[in-house]
Amino acid sequence: MPYMNVKTTAAIDAGKRETIKSELGKAIELIPGKSENWLMVSFEDNSIMYFKGSSERPLAYIEVKIFGKSSKDAYENLTKAITGIIHKELSIDPDCVYVIYEEISNWGWNGTNF
Amino acid sequence: MPYMNVKTTAAIDAGKRETIKSELGKAIELIPGKSENWLMVSFEDNSIMYFKGSSERPLAYIEVKIFGKSSKDAYENLTKAITGIIHKELSIDPDCVYVIYEEISNWGWNGTNF
Amino acid sequence: MPYMNVKTTAAIDAGKRETIKSELGKAIELIPGKSENWLMVSFEDNSIMYFKGSSERPLAYIEVKIFGKSSKDAYENLTKAITGIIHKELSIDPDCVYVIYEEISNWGWNGTNF
Repeated sequence: MPYMNVKTTAAIDAGKRETIKSELGKAIELIPGKSENWLMVSFEDNSIMYFKGSSERPLAYIEVKIFGKSSKDAYENLTKAITGIIHKELSIDPDCVYVIYEEISNWGWNGTNF
Repeated sequence: MPYMNVKTTAAIDAGKRETIKSELGKAIELIPGKSENWLMVSFEDNSIMYFKGSSERPLAYIEVKIFGKSSKDAYENLTKAITGIIHKELSIDPDCVYVIYEEISNWGWNGTNF
Repeated sequence: MPYMNVKTTAAIDAGKRETIKSELGKAIELIPGKSENWLMVSFEDNSIMYFKGSSERPLAYIEVKIFGKSSKDAYENLTKAITGIIHKELSIDPDCVYVIYEEISNWGWNGTNF
């Protein structure tokens, strides 16, 4: 039950999107107990964003929500992986990427909560 | 002071949107103390989303934020109701719907916080 | 490490966006330790939104995420400032503006977590 939203100023074509989706699906395994089997990913490309008051450099903001809790180490590893994927596939510099984590206690799927 | 965002791969026309909005406005009453009187709803249709690595089936992700806290039972009931609405109105299978809850301690309206 | 998302039914042209971005960059200083130097801002204009069951009046929903924690007073001041900016620049009435705050414990930047 993880969810990731990739919000970026970059344009992402269909092929690139498939690649990033698959790489995120592998990366999520860095959180113990999580896998692509339960991962929902959404993309918001061509977004209007500013960082440090500027919109000159390409930017990305990735929100990761997981059901339950995990460890600082797991999040650290996932940040490294996600930032690497975004850098490799979208040519966005790591210092222009935020990754934030939210632990969700109440999460519904298939009409009921976990 | 609840807020719901409906993000989905489906297209939602204006009529359907009105229907869903009204049904969500009734469903929110499943959270004690909440009603459409304070509910803000937003729609992000035609979104780019994947679940379990695939984009073949229509998907929905509903984020519910409420001011303060509520009970597991209330969230359980709301998940059932929201998933039913999404299934009925958008023909999205319940096993393709995530509903997540966030309890917000600091919430502003009309220039001041509750 | 703050982030703000401005979601609104209003259209925001490029000039207005620059103005709002700069004003939000000043307003964030109301949270001790925060400044535009670390602020990421995103805009979602022309959004489809309802409040109290209606879409007749222009609406705005601002999500503020900060790394770590702050005080009730700081959030109160920021709500007042943000609502004022949205009112002045987009002519949205304060009673049509929600501002919500989320304190994030795990926040990545530049490939590592703070």
